[in-house]
Amino acid sequence: MDIKNVQKELKNSKMSGRIFTLGNMFINEDILPEENRILELTKFSGSYALLFVTPSKAYLFVDGRYELQAKKEVNLRQVEIVKLSEISFFEWLRNNYAKTATKISYNPWVISQSALENLQNLLPTAQFIPVDNSPKLLSTQKIKVFTHQKKFTGQISKDKIATFCTYIKKQGLDAYLVTDAANTSWLLNLRSNALPYTPIFRAYVLIEKNGTYKVFAEHCDYEQSLSFDKLEEILPQYDKIGADYNTSPAIIKSYNNKIKNTPDEITNLKAIKNAVELKGIRNAHLRDGVALSKFLYWLSKNYKGKTEIEIAEKLLSFRKKELNFHSESFATIAGSGANAAIVHYHATEQNNSIIKKNNVLLLDSGGQYLDGTTDVTRTIAIGEPSSDMIEKNTLVLKSHIALANAIFPQKTSGDELDLIARQPLYKKGLDFEHGTGHGVGFFSNVHEGPARISIHAKRSAEYKAGMITSIEPGYYKENAFGIRIENLYMVKPCKNPKFLHFEVLTLAPIDKNLINKNLLTADEINWLNRYHRQVFLSLKKYLTRQELEWLRFACAPL
Amino acid sequence: MDIKNVQKELKNSKMSGRIFTLGNMFINEDILPEENRILELTKFSGSYALLFVTPSKAYLFVDGRYELQAKKEVNLRQVEIVKLSEISFFEWLRNNYAKTATKISYNPWVISQSALENLQNLLPTAQFIPVDNSPKLLSTQKIKVFTHQKKFTGQISKDKIATFCTYIKKQGLDAYLVTDAANTSWLLNLRSNALPYTPIFRAYVLIEKNGTYKVFAEHCDYEQSLSFDKLEEILPQYDKIGADYNTSPAIIKSYNNKIKNTPDEITNLKAIKNAVELKGIRNAHLRDGVALSKFLYWLSKNYKGKTEIEIAEKLLSFRKKELNFHSESFATIAGSGANAAIVHYHATEQNNSIIKKNNVLLLDSGGQYLDGTTDVTRTIAIGEPSSDMIEKNTLVLKSHIALANAIFPQKTSGDELDLIARQPLYKKGLDFEHGTGHGVGFFSNVHEGPARISIHAKRSAEYKAGMITSIEPGYYKENAFGIRIENLYMVKPCKNPKFLHFEVLTLAPIDKNLINKNLLTADEINWLNRYHRQVFLSLKKYLTRQELEWLRFACAPL
Repeated sequence: MDIKNVQKELKNSKMSGRIFTLGNMFINEDILPEENRILELTKFSGSYALLFVTPSKAYLFVDGRYELQAKKEVNLRQVEIVKLSEISFFEWLRNNYAKTATKISYNPWVISQSALENLQNLLPTAQFIPVDNSPKLLSTQKIKVFTHQKKFTGQISKDKIATFCTYIKKQGLDAYLVTDAANTSWLLNLRSNALPYTPIFRAYVLIEKNGTYKVFAEHCDYEQSLSFDKLEEILPQYDKIGADYNTSPAIIKSYNNKIKNTPDEITNLKAIKNAVELKGIRNAHLRDGVALSKFLYWLSKNYKGKTEIEIAEKLLSFRKKELNFHSESFATIAGSGANAAIVHYHATEQNNSIIKKNNVLLLDSGGQYLDGTTDVTRTIAIGEPSSDMIEKNTLVLKSHIALANAIFPQKTSGDELDLIARQPLYKKGLDFEHGTGHGVGFFSNVHEGPARISIHAKRSAEYKAGMITSIEPGYYKENAFGIRIENLYMVKPCKNPKFLHFEVLTLAPIDKNLINKNLLTADEINWLNRYHRQVFLSLKKYLTRQELEWLRFACAPL
Repeated sequence: MDIKNVQKELKNSKMSGRIFTLGNMFINEDILPEENRILELTKFSGSYALLFVTPSKAYLFVDGRYELQAKKEVNLRQVEIVKLSEISFFEWLRNNYAKTATKISYNPWVISQSALENLQNLLPTAQFIPVDNSPKLLSTQKIKVFTHQKKFTGQISKDKIATFCTYIKKQGLDAYLVTDAANTSWLLNLRSNALPYTPIFRAYVLIEKNGTYKVFAEHCDYEQSLSFDKLEEILPQYDKIGADYNTSPAIIKSYNNKIKNTPDEITNLKAIKNAVELKGIRNAHLRDGVALSKFLYWLSKNYKGKTEIEIAEKLLSFRKKELNFHSESFATIAGSGANAAIVHYHATEQNNSIIKKNNVLLLDSGGQYLDGTTDVTRTIAIGEPSSDMIEKNTLVLKSHIALANAIFPQKTSGDELDLIARQPLYKKGLDFEHGTGHGVGFFSNVHEGPARISIHAKRSAEYKAGMITSIEPGYYKENAFGIRIENLYMVKPCKNPKFLHFEVLTLAPIDKNLINKNLLTADEINWLNRYHRQVFLSLKKYLTRQELEWLRFACAPL
């Protein structure tokens, strides 16, 4: 299908427009390329966008990360790009459609109930018309489902369900429909090979307050699962049933109008990692640090003439040798020079570049291990980078350290932390157009809620001990270079338990060739030296003699 | 009246308890001592508290600033002190009264409508019974009302009213009752001598959407004013009338149940100072800096044997000599040694101390000038303070500079700024139990909304260019000493107008005898040296030769 077909359909049915989201029936989850309607319609390949097609035009809404990329990928004669950094989709819709009675179509399997209600409140005179009423966006490839063993999860599914049932009863419900696939996966200790980077089992689970449950999934070898079609028959059987309107598609409420909007508490439960998970996460980060450091040594000797794709493949080959490795946790971003200025750049056969000399290479990658998920960005000097690159990298490092070193009271939210991280950049009139940090799942989504560090995280979830977060400030100079320094941290209580701090998980050297020591304070230099000492002591016994010599130098005090 | 009388009354009328606020019919405003029921009942003299009296007990709720002071002032056998830092009044009430049907009495003139509604929601089974239905808490002394001239305000009352009427109409209202006395004073460009420190005219104003208005006030020489009793007769005449439930006493809604809760927009209008006000504020701060610096020189020569009260009187005598001086903006806090550890200490005949040697003197004071309000705290070394005092003062200075130097995007709220300020203290396991900053009125309340810098200011008003705020971190060591460093700042746009920063208003040296330079970064030292250079250059032409020599030394680079 292409945009012209959509426009023909709109004209025939006298519609004013149609909304396309990038998702499928698992709202906000990772999707397969063949499920990506926006990719199909516009060629935009980023991980977040909205598309609004009218009979005569099409508008693609993208955030700061994807502005440059969208410009490169879409046909600008057919699709107008709207920057979400300047106007929200809702505001845009209100500006353009609030005063005219309109008919807007949508697929009720791919829009959440809360998004639909927001749209209805926003445009009370409009009619929103569901079309395309089947969850057909799921891939039809046969999926292998497997158990995430207790030695990794630390808790059996039965115990997790018991905890969740307490919540169901407390809400006065008889049953709850979990529509968030990562939450289903956590609750049942199940995983699958459905997605290349995120090992979740894409399923819904309907739990009764006594703990019995039904799983809804398709095209998989999980035998007890029911087809999604069964929801239409089963959901109306409950009077007191809850679902989270933020993650349940609009079609769910159309099956049973009594379904009560009830936050999915699993999101909070799974964000706090238990002792077994935390031990695994530390071990996984040690192995990931070994792989990344071996790769960095290799890169220092072999970067000449290599392409971004070759770099990413080589890094994967190092990770594959490590225990419990399952897959990358997302498609590696290896961006050289101007490519790295595109925040979520991915090298493809078309744009793949040879690593540029006298520039920087931005390398954002991670692994899914059975005992933990990693996500790390290093920016690496190739040849002799300019003093501008060194200054900007040093500012990004100051920004990283400002937050990594922060102490904050219980109940601190992500917007408060964000302002701390950005101070060193703001003071030089610089900024970056993406979040400063995200939660990370356990052998699950590399981006996990509920907390995140962002200027937009006002009123968002509070940070709590046991959570994992990335810290990843950056700086991007269009058409020139890109910088980001990312580690994962766990949130820990201070001696005074009213306060929290971050403990580092990621173990890999930060490139000193890109640091101007004169721009760092004594505290910042101490942080870096302490961090490098920890990296060296942790990794040293897993390296060859040459790798060790390289690491000793890379981790020597500034 | 004393607590025993209240308890007798409660028993006779079979009540479970009575709530006393510290306020009068001008909710959250400064009050006269003779209007302070909590002072009368408990002897607690702080500026914020709640008192709950039951037939057998009395509970005084105080915040972090007043915990020590309350312990000293009240009869602990009769009154139990409850720390608001540990439990909110509402939580406490729910814990103790949620499960029993209770009757609780209150004075509907001194509790806001929103507080009453919160209480009713909190304890749905309780009956809240208004008693004492007259605004009798107003002083009966004859009040002089005067015009705040246009050369100071920059805008005539008629124009302010026209702006506000646009808001009234936009809300679909025919009239609006302003119950916030500072807002009435701003709107009408009127002031009075009713309060010793806050020159506001304590009046309500009822504005119709065409701009005509009625003023309600008592015991004053403002001839057009009506008695508050008239409200009962006049308010029911309006169908579409608004008032702000946060500042209007509960009795108002009992007069006309149709009154619609509508935020008082004057709070936002008056917070953004206009160009004439800002020019006045700068001039007032220059004169206030001259007075304070002359005093500091005098103090350096004359502290021996002086009492805290003598210090405060001497400082006032310097301010009195300055142009446009009207009064202090609050009772000066001159606290020596352990007294300064009581955050809002006031020297009285009973506790007045002689300035301690080899300690620090905390001096928090300010002036009301016709062209601006000041508020400044300096902590001054007396003799040879201990290295602990110097270390803590240096940390408080780091905290002050961290925020004074901050750059922040539009829409930043006070909790985000608060976390920046406290980082240097948190990192040493230290904290202070009061807000980091408050808005400041223009020849009006020294504490003015809507924005404030506080851990508790989540979801509070955003900072905007033209606002004035204090920055005043501190450190308090019980029974030993207290430190606070406070300047006022105006909020200004950066070159990139998406960002804001602070421009300093207060001009007085920060005591270098209490600074350990080794604990400061190069940026912090630069900030202090630049600030002192500005202080010196601004004040130098207004001082005597000896004062100038002293200031040159006090402002010399670190």
